[in-house]
Amino acid sequence: MSEEKRCWLDPEDVTPRKGSIYPAPFDAPVAGREKRALGDALGLTQFGVNLVTLPPGAWSSQRHWHANEDEFVYVVEGEVTLVTDAGEQILGPGMAAGFPAGRPDGHHLINRTKTPVIYLEVGTRAAVEQAQYSDIDMKARKDGGTFVFTHKNGDPYP
Amino acid sequence: MSEEKRCWLDPEDVTPRKGSIYPAPFDAPVAGREKRALGDALGLTQFGVNLVTLPPGAWSSQRHWHANEDEFVYVVEGEVTLVTDAGEQILGPGMAAGFPAGRPDGHHLINRTKTPVIYLEVGTRAAVEQAQYSDIDMKARKDGGTFVFTHKNGDPYP
Repeated sequence: MSEEKRCWLDPEDVTPRKGSIYPAPFDAPVAGREKRALGDALGLTQFGVNLVTLPPGAWSSQRHWHANEDEFVYVVEGEVTLVTDAGEQILGPGMAAGFPAGRPDGHHLINRTKTPVIYLEVGTRAAVEQAQYSDIDMKARKDGGTFVFTHKNGDPYP
Repeated sequence: MSEEKRCWLDPEDVTPRKGSIYPAPFDAPVAGREKRALGDALGLTQFGVNLVTLPPGAWSSQRHWHANEDEFVYVVEGEVTLVTDAGEQILGPGMAAGFPAGRPDGHHLINRTKTPVIYLEVGTRAAVEQAQYSDIDMKARKDGGTFVFTHKNGDPYP
């Protein structure tokens, strides 16, 4: 079977990408995060699926919510702290979380333990999208390309 | 936090639905399959996420492919046999598979072991969809509602 048509994989064979594209200093808490883009590797385009490893202390992202894209998380290994407007909740292996598009409740995951956390994340791929950040002066917008990050008033980051 | 806005869950708390809506006799190999609709329980609408248990001998579905919906599978527990036009491939815990919309290669999963298999499946929710079945005289179509199954020539099943 040609590589192009292979429909299965072992995530170990997918090269992870590390860190984030946030402007400094917002990239720092996310710097240790590693994402393996399983969906892309399998040729999927309608939603993204990443296998994410958070080393001790790392965050999944800055706390945010999406206007147009549903998001889903399934914990594979370790215990991770989910932070939302409602507070904190520890999610262990086999537990799941979901964030419907447009629900204005910022969320992110933090590894407060001493061992790595591994989780699967799924998100719809909308061509046009906005993300709002709950705790920092940042917002993001994409319009067919990649996200552009600005201050909340629209001023660009350097 | 109200039940409506809870954004996390333990799949153990989601009631599974058993079996399939295929016409007989095509429902028989799938009769033991249990699906927990995690995405629905979390309020997601753009894609479905199910945690599926296949007891020994059970199939995920009849072998099929979708015209409009991407599909993704991640094995949580056990070893499952993936069947496609290319043959058979065993997928163990942590392995993944993906089936891009419109790729005409029918696929399904069979538990040929003596212990349950558990996997996560993700599929886009298209309003209009067609499914083609590789090994049997059946096709399916939905147009805003649920799937309707017919013979390949369009004649209804009783």
